Amino acid sequence: MTDTATIAAAPLDLASRLIACESVTPATGAVFDCLEAMLEPLGFAVTRFVCGEAPDGPVENLFAIRRPLGDPGRHFAFAGHLDVVPPGKGWASDPFVPEVRGDLLHGRGAVDMKGSIASFVAAAADIPREAGTLSFIITGDEEGPAVYGTRALIDLMQRDGTVPDLCLVGEPTSVGRLGDMVKIGRRGSVNMWIRVAGQQGHVAYPHLADNPIPKLVAILSAIEAVVLDEGTDWFQPSNIEVTDLHVGNPAHNVIPAAAEARISIRFNDRHSGESLIALIRGIAEPLGGSVEAKISGEAFLTPPGELSGIIAEAIRAETGVETELSTTGGTSDARFLSRICPVVEFGLCNATMHKLDEAVAVADLEVLARIYRRVTLAALVGTS
Amino acid sequence: MTDTATIAAAPLDLASRLIACESVTPATGAVFDCLEAMLEPLGFAVTRFVCGEAPDGPVENLFAIRRPLGDPGRHFAFAGHLDVVPPGKGWASDPFVPEVRGDLLHGRGAVDMKGSIASFVAAAADIPREAGTLSFIITGDEEGPAVYGTRALIDLMQRDGTVPDLCLVGEPTSVGRLGDMVKIGRRGSVNMWIRVAGQQGHVAYPHLADNPIPKLVAILSAIEAVVLDEGTDWFQPSNIEVTDLHVGNPAHNVIPAAAEARISIRFNDRHSGESLIALIRGIAEPLGGSVEAKISGEAFLTPPGELSGIIAEAIRAETGVETELSTTGGTSDARFLSRICPVVEFGLCNATMHKLDEAVAVADLEVLARIYRRVTLAALVGTS
Repeated sequence: MTDTATIAAAPLDLASRLIACESVTPATGAVFDCLEAMLEPLGFAVTRFVCGEAPDGPVENLFAIRRPLGDPGRHFAFAGHLDVVPPGKGWASDPFVPEVRGDLLHGRGAVDMKGSIASFVAAAADIPREAGTLSFIITGDEEGPAVYGTRALIDLMQRDGTVPDLCLVGEPTSVGRLGDMVKIGRRGSVNMWIRVAGQQGHVAYPHLADNPIPKLVAILSAIEAVVLDEGTDWFQPSNIEVTDLHVGNPAHNVIPAAAEARISIRFNDRHSGESLIALIRGIAEPLGGSVEAKISGEAFLTPPGELSGIIAEAIRAETGVETELSTTGGTSDARFLSRICPVVEFGLCNATMHKLDEAVAVADLEVLARIYRRVTLAALVGTS
Repeated sequence: MTDTATIAAAPLDLASRLIACESVTPATGAVFDCLEAMLEPLGFAVTRFVCGEAPDGPVENLFAIRRPLGDPGRHFAFAGHLDVVPPGKGWASDPFVPEVRGDLLHGRGAVDMKGSIASFVAAAADIPREAGTLSFIITGDEEGPAVYGTRALIDLMQRDGTVPDLCLVGEPTSVGRLGDMVKIGRRGSVNMWIRVAGQQGHVAYPHLADNPIPKLVAILSAIEAVVLDEGTDWFQPSNIEVTDLHVGNPAHNVIPAAAEARISIRFNDRHSGESLIALIRGIAEPLGGSVEAKISGEAFLTPPGELSGIIAEAIRAETGVETELSTTGGTSDARFLSRICPVVEFGLCNATMHKLDEAVAVADLEVLARIYRRVTLAALVGTS
């Protein structure tokens, strides 16, 4: 194995086969059959299971593991998802018929993240079995509610004693050029609904009514004045946005009975969903509001260290790019996996993800496979 | 004519005949025929005309005038409307079939204001022609847009030189007992829509978006701090109510592109619709908002004097009640008539107006006719 070694399996072919299996969230069946058929010849033991009930399930998941015949050594995992967001209308070609035009492979999931899975499969085909334990943690519901996906896979690993030492999530983190960004953490996310009840009445007789809107305005003014933090070494400042206001009163001469606002907070690891709910309740309740909340995900951070160092070095070796360690952007399943082991996200360029005519540079699939192979070999050896 | 004289024409019969003519806004045709048939035998010259086009017209109006054969003397007018608000569902009897049950006459318009018109017709039948000039100013659109109703009647009177010296509007102003309240003025009313435009974006990338909601909250906070006035001798303080908030953003993770609030201001004669629009624009525009406005009516006041004195004395003589001169409540067509002569509103008890099973005490119709006769006679004689 040298720096110039090529990958035996063609990730373009593997990615095309996965794209050809239509798998809008929640993904089931054929696309898992397709991946299983790639992994079994490589010596992986594949476990598939369906979990959950409506409305957030059922969800299909796949766990594949390959151990050395002797000492299991270190355990490195690749995590990802086979589901894709709906294609929408207006594609230049069928979103579920992979098509190479010029330098690009087109199809829904090309970058998010069937292309990345294909590159890791290609890398795994080039990793000697004796190098250590390798696994795939693959869900069919990352783009959806994500209740019965990666969380169920974590339950399985904890039950079976197959929790990895390190994990790479194949989300498309690159921005302008393959390798220019990896994610070592993500902000958390919580939505809250602030409701103020009043007493309906005629605007001509305000003393007989109790307008809830001034109270809501006072609550929102107080929330606007909150500075959650100034950011940390690795995170931008936590941020509160009011995303909706609703009264729904069509009558010009009527004081309404209730008013509601919705806020969305993206927060760093200085906060938790529960601490922020308590903060907002502490503002709203004394001013006459009530608060309902839903935590979408907690913040997590894998402080720069072994895994991010391995990835940065592999990117540098294959591309010459100095990668940026970032915590920007939305949530991913890394928020769940970070509870069981160090996790870093790294994958293809995200310019076309979730958009019409999603596409990946064919060359990037090859380079990504080489980077993944370097990362895997280094992770299995261990630096600590 | 003495204090104990009874009214020759029966207002119960007249009111019943008017109620039997279904006349939801805009009223046309039959109900005007019915009133015309009552007034012509009393010596009134009746002018009917239809005015305006969709959407606020056409509207039917009636002007009836009776002059002495010699010197026209003073001119006293009764103003009112033959249209009624929709009955709604759930009446105990047909809203357009007048029905006396116990002491009450039921039917849509019983108090607002066919009963009042009937009482004035009965009163007019008892006023000698030589007492002075008497007129009826009757529209078919007071409960609706009121664009082509009383305003068109005012145009007619100004063109024909038939502007009255004093005018009584027969709106149901009594509260607990007939005669306990008359209205010498009304507050004005203006609605405004405050809109803030922003830049839509993802909540995870607030620096790429421009949330309009904090700006709207700042504008509303500033408006909440405004004290328009402390009230006057005759008016309660002017009042601003925020009556609606609207963003309409269903996406939890999206910063919206625009936010809107609606406010309603009821104001006394210290302000005009235009002065208030300028005030709100002066607050909203520097904070990034734009304002659209619609003036429903200007404030008016007929300062306590001859007309209110005549009415108070007539109420006292017929009922023993000391009336209250008030400026509370919503707008009426008196806001237009106040531009041409002193105007006071006085009519039946308003407890059931605009409600299911609208009803008037039969006895009140008789007493109101006697009060109206006293008022008319005193107004035609004049005290000044």
